[in-house]
Amino acid sequence: MISVTRLDISDADILIGGAVAKANALGVPMCIAVTDEAGQLMAFCRMDGGKVTSTTIAIDKAFTAAGAKKATHEYGIASQPGAPAYGIASAIGGRLMVVGGGYPVLVDGKAVGGIGVSSGTPDQDMAVAQAGIEAFHKHV
Amino acid sequence: MISVTRLDISDADILIGGAVAKANALGVPMCIAVTDEAGQLMAFCRMDGGKVTSTTIAIDKAFTAAGAKKATHEYGIASQPGAPAYGIASAIGGRLMVVGGGYPVLVDGKAVGGIGVSSGTPDQDMAVAQAGIEAFHKHV
Amino acid sequence: MISVTRLDISDADILIGGAVAKANALGVPMCIAVTDEAGQLMAFCRMDGGKVTSTTIAIDKAFTAAGAKKATHEYGIASQPGAPAYGIASAIGGRLMVVGGGYPVLVDGKAVGGIGVSSGTPDQDMAVAQAGIEAFHKHV
Amino acid sequence: MISVTRLDISDADILIGGAVAKANALGVPMCIAVTDEAGQLMAFCRMDGGKVTSTTIAIDKAFTAAGAKKATHEYGIASQPGAPAYGIASAIGGRLMVVGGGYPVLVDGKAVGGIGVSSGTPDQDMAVAQAGIEAFHKHV
Repeated sequence: MISVTRLDISDADILIGGAVAKANALGVPMCIAVTDEAGQLMAFCRMDGGKVTSTTIAIDKAFTAAGAKKATHEYGIASQPGAPAYGIASAIGGRLMVVGGGYPVLVDGKAVGGIGVSSGTPDQDMAVAQAGIEAFHKHV
Repeated sequence: MISVTRLDISDADILIGGAVAKANALGVPMCIAVTDEAGQLMAFCRMDGGKVTSTTIAIDKAFTAAGAKKATHEYGIASQPGAPAYGIASAIGGRLMVVGGGYPVLVDGKAVGGIGVSSGTPDQDMAVAQAGIEAFHKHV
Repeated sequence: MISVTRLDISDADILIGGAVAKANALGVPMCIAVTDEAGQLMAFCRMDGGKVTSTTIAIDKAFTAAGAKKATHEYGIASQPGAPAYGIASAIGGRLMVVGGGYPVLVDGKAVGGIGVSSGTPDQDMAVAQAGIEAFHKHV
Repeated sequence: MISVTRLDISDADILIGGAVAKANALGVPMCIAVTDEAGQLMAFCRMDGGKVTSTTIAIDKAFTAAGAKKATHEYGIASQPGAPAYGIASAIGGRLMVVGGGYPVLVDGKAVGGIGVSSGTPDQDMAVAQAGIEAFHKHV
């Protein structure tokens, strides 16, 4: 059998707290989702003014990053026309996200969860997700 | 045009906080979801040990209660074999929840959001959801 | 080849207008949908205060009634435990509605469309849908 | 709590009326959908000859525009190969529309709803949606 290390709900709250702080600093209300290492939703927050359409996108960015152990923008590069993963964006009923803003949460090189952010530009989404991860690493 | 009053994200956090406290008191880790009055997800928490299968159920209980302005267990009664709403449980792709644990959040008799809880027995889910609503009303 | 007679959009507006008038008389804001005889949506109206959860239900009641050429409450009877159509409520991804409020629109015994109503009790939904059909027949 | 202003059903009818008039002027029958600011469907009209395949597209254009507070053709530009939002078109089970014809309805710079049009070329869809919005602003 296998032992798995994953985020607990207090870790998820810290990830979201760090992301919210950055979103407030940028002045862009965001949807923020955290999944465990199995890609299953742990926590979600739609800040006041965050986009309704970004709810599922944030959840699916976290799902993709945790499940595939890869940042979603890496899929963005790999799925361009002519690239090897072209067409992957519509996989899993559209849940496989290739737009930036989803990252695996890594500890000792292993994915212990994922964070996904949506409502801003991809650059803003990525910065906010990274701020969540930084808050987590400061705490751990 | 119409003016509508709905929960903000700090209200949602208070609803979830009250529910988590009750779940801890009962010793049953829960999935807890809060939607706005339009049924759109605002916040979600899967406590450590909450059931993965309860994630969607909690979200859909909150959606049903907010959207229909009715507690989900009321649908449970109305949808028994021979009752008028028999068969409603599979509506909206199965999102229409008739199991107890979903309540509209009412202010001055109007729905301003919904809370949905899942992972325990329906009685436990209902008690935890009500504890969330009580915490909200203490605060408001 | 076959020639098909179906509602046009002005017929659909008359059906919805008759239903809205009855809903106002009852004091129950409703979701009202009209489909053509192929079950495809032609017109939809969510009155102010109509339930968000009733949007899909009204559309699917009209779809079921038009497509099956049968009132949805007839399926309610036929799908009770032990009855021949038991379990049909979850067919077509849950679109097959067995709760009252959906009727085929019949002309000379042939279905030319369907109307579906949701937000009240099944009895209210049925009365409002029938009022729509009566308005249509007065006009034709 | 938060107070939100949104379209009422008479506003939705004016939006659709303005769009239908323009569609008739162009000689192109259209599917036209209006949602509230939460992206929930309020009203829909498939003009005689409007495409059956455009029903969902019109509804999802309105949903996208209202929920993201952005015109759908803006996503079309941002989601081209190599652009930052490449791949977003298949998000939310394919509901995120990047083809022109969806606009938020703005009052004092805030989204109070959305309109989506489909059945013509994207340019025609956009012109018809804008005509709906113009009719609304003349009235308000």
